[in-house]
Amino acid sequence: MLLAKFPLDGRGALYEQLARVLKRAIVEGHFHPGERLPATRSLAETLNLSRNTVLTAYEILRAEQLTICSERSATRVAQISLPPSFTSPPVAAAPQSRYAARLRKLGTNTLGRVREDLRYNLHSDPPFVSDMLRSWSRKLTAAARVAGAHYPDSQGFPPLRSAIADYLARRRGVVCAESDILIVGGTQQAVTIAARAVLDEGDTVAIEDPHYLYLMQGLTAHGARVVSVRTDQNGMVTSELARHKARLICVSPSDQFPSGTVMSLERRVELLDVASRQGSWILEDDYNSEFHFRERPLAALRSLDFSGRVIYVGTFSKTLFPSLRLGFIVCPPGLREDLCKVKRFDDLGSPSVEQAALAAFMRSRQFEKYLRRTVAALQHCRAVFMDSLRRHCAERVAIQETYAGTHLVVWLHTVKYPQLARLIELGISHGLGLYPIHPYYRNPPERPGLMLGYAGLSAEALERAGELLGDCIGKLEGEARREACGRPRSARNQKSC
Amino acid sequence: MLLAKFPLDGRGALYEQLARVLKRAIVEGHFHPGERLPATRSLAETLNLSRNTVLTAYEILRAEQLTICSERSATRVAQISLPPSFTSPPVAAAPQSRYAARLRKLGTNTLGRVREDLRYNLHSDPPFVSDMLRSWSRKLTAAARVAGAHYPDSQGFPPLRSAIADYLARRRGVVCAESDILIVGGTQQAVTIAARAVLDEGDTVAIEDPHYLYLMQGLTAHGARVVSVRTDQNGMVTSELARHKARLICVSPSDQFPSGTVMSLERRVELLDVASRQGSWILEDDYNSEFHFRERPLAALRSLDFSGRVIYVGTFSKTLFPSLRLGFIVCPPGLREDLCKVKRFDDLGSPSVEQAALAAFMRSRQFEKYLRRTVAALQHCRAVFMDSLRRHCAERVAIQETYAGTHLVVWLHTVKYPQLARLIELGISHGLGLYPIHPYYRNPPERPGLMLGYAGLSAEALERAGELLGDCIGKLEGEARREACGRPRSARNQKSC
Repeated sequence: MLLAKFPLDGRGALYEQLARVLKRAIVEGHFHPGERLPATRSLAETLNLSRNTVLTAYEILRAEQLTICSERSATRVAQISLPPSFTSPPVAAAPQSRYAARLRKLGTNTLGRVREDLRYNLHSDPPFVSDMLRSWSRKLTAAARVAGAHYPDSQGFPPLRSAIADYLARRRGVVCAESDILIVGGTQQAVTIAARAVLDEGDTVAIEDPHYLYLMQGLTAHGARVVSVRTDQNGMVTSELARHKARLICVSPSDQFPSGTVMSLERRVELLDVASRQGSWILEDDYNSEFHFRERPLAALRSLDFSGRVIYVGTFSKTLFPSLRLGFIVCPPGLREDLCKVKRFDDLGSPSVEQAALAAFMRSRQFEKYLRRTVAALQHCRAVFMDSLRRHCAERVAIQETYAGTHLVVWLHTVKYPQLARLIELGISHGLGLYPIHPYYRNPPERPGLMLGYAGLSAEALERAGELLGDCIGKLEGEARREACGRPRSARNQKSC
Repeated sequence: MLLAKFPLDGRGALYEQLARVLKRAIVEGHFHPGERLPATRSLAETLNLSRNTVLTAYEILRAEQLTICSERSATRVAQISLPPSFTSPPVAAAPQSRYAARLRKLGTNTLGRVREDLRYNLHSDPPFVSDMLRSWSRKLTAAARVAGAHYPDSQGFPPLRSAIADYLARRRGVVCAESDILIVGGTQQAVTIAARAVLDEGDTVAIEDPHYLYLMQGLTAHGARVVSVRTDQNGMVTSELARHKARLICVSPSDQFPSGTVMSLERRVELLDVASRQGSWILEDDYNSEFHFRERPLAALRSLDFSGRVIYVGTFSKTLFPSLRLGFIVCPPGLREDLCKVKRFDDLGSPSVEQAALAAFMRSRQFEKYLRRTVAALQHCRAVFMDSLRRHCAERVAIQETYAGTHLVVWLHTVKYPQLARLIELGISHGLGLYPIHPYYRNPPERPGLMLGYAGLSAEALERAGELLGDCIGKLEGEARREACGRPRSARNQKSC
């Protein structure tokens, strides 16, 4: 009868499970204060358990002060008054803070979900890993000793900060001291830390349209009023910034996400000027600048920032791999102390071992060697993929001109928005993972486009993926034609049938 | 002259440094739009650099669109209008958000700083590590492959969550599902995540007095109104909770930090009842419960929580080591979605490799074996230290009765607050690191006390540390007597001289 009401939960040893059952029975008033618990022998028989199990369970209850031993080793429920609130049902789930209320409104971000079952998956998330993971595990072994067991420096492992400062000067034109660098758990944490340092609830943030979804969502969760500023082939249209008077302006000038455009010098200058005049901060997300395919990439926006307005954010999610969760902020002088403190009170600092491993990797210059090899391999993949797309999709698509990154943006000439779902379905049936670009826009572009990541596939797979995309579009066109002929009442233009 | 005004910064190759000098000179108006830059050959001569260095620097400027090539390969400054804001000095440093303003008021927490140079350092931070770090590095190697390179599950590596759920049922009486567990970067992140999920600015949080400083500071930074509730030998005095109507109540019932008291069952019941009646949430910080020295420790408060009010927080900073930065929340049903979302939008999840290593360690039960060995070793250290303190300090100190943890609380009978600084100074001169307990109190206790961590020292060192403490207190007493005799005008009681 006891077990019918309070069944064993199957976790751990039987005596622990029984102790929990008895505990719950006491708490919920099945046994009353002062009442004698059943004799161990008879309870064991009733429940078909060994007597030792019952004895140990009783011992646990005594240790937890829920029972006492009375005369002749009888076990009685302790004189504790358990208030009726103990049997009240679990609390309902209304949001408990304004933050939580905003989070709930965000909805689920299903875009990030990568399908694992597709052979030709063109999602843009998969990193270019090659043999990095294997050699990374060796680096970790050596680093574990260097990192030590103590609480980390919450600003970041000093040798890593110094390696990054050195690297930034050489590769990104960013000159800063080790003490300007704050190690964080990737771009997302950089954004939330910056938000806390410079934004109150209701403050305005300007982001690019299109944009990285987690950026928008993280800022919205923080309570910012997020406004979108249009981008064109020169990046964010900075002339539209003045009317927003944003406190924070988020840009990815080296490789706009996801469109791949590079912000022109004129726009950079105008952006810095607007920020300086309005007292805005600029968050420069330089997430992908290393994977560029020109001899010299533009230096970071931060290299032009002589008035300390730019919060420069870098990540190793693209150059190494995302499960590492390491990135950094180059703090402008006026925010350095605040940004470092936000990080300290958030989580006391990022784990040490990865930081030590990365520091050793960067200082040995193996990192840059690895980057060069990776860029060469990516460039090859990209060339093969573009060639395949041109051959198999021909004039049915337009490939957006970009110079960096790990994905292509392909605009569809012959597919309309309502047909996109069917195109994706056709892709899946061929093992081809296709991802539309319009969810990244607040104002969707006129015609549909795809974001086709090429970092996770081999050159051979990419060749085939281009062919399959051509097939799928072809099939879709065929279906559309047939539908137009077969169902004249819904067709508007039957001339071509 | 150019280099006198804009010196080379010494970072990276000379041509990069020169490019930055020229860039700055252009931006700051030293060269005007359309103006011709010096011929490479003459500039090289003037600056005493090779001509190739100058050529490459000019090439960088061209790539960055700051200059153009005009007739006969002369290099001219591009027609970009650089607004006067470019030469404005870096912005001043007023706090940019209410959050930042609160952070600045917190001041620096110097308590956490461990002196590295003391042979007998009794700080409570150093973890008990033994040979763990070496074997940990091997575990990481294996885990790197399991963890994979992709973005982690932001709620935590599923096998780790399942191992923790299993462990909690067996060791802490906490029954929960894998899906109730959220992996976080240690207790501090757990606190800030919980704060965001349940607290708005201005909401009241009740914490214990004494308390963990980072807890108080993290909550204050979030904007909470933090009130302190007195503790006695039974833990938090829960009868004082009613008048505060706190939205969140933070307790460490298994081992109050830093006093080491265990919350009695009556208080636990009252706490849960108050929370249920007031609609408060309880944050149970179970940071140290594994290091107990009784046969059966009390189960977690969470094991009595049948109405879903307790946010249970565990950490591996004590059981393993702090640089790991791993902990977890057992989410109550009503907050699960919110807490997981806060983590996701904060940093997209904790790094994967450590999580995979820890999962393997826990599932093989090696973790619990390690804990048993560690507890035995700690218990030995503790016994040696207590014995040494009793012999060498005798009735001059009182050792607080505790059953868990990695430090002792020692109350000083013969030392007064104004003498504490001198005692610490005497300690340092003997290589003995002593740490007072009163900074952890809002209302300092009547007489001064010390928090003496014993996890970082060998039994031999602890024996000696106890002896040295006796010596230091003895010396301090001698000094006080001499001072009382030698300077009669400041002495109040000269009978004993």
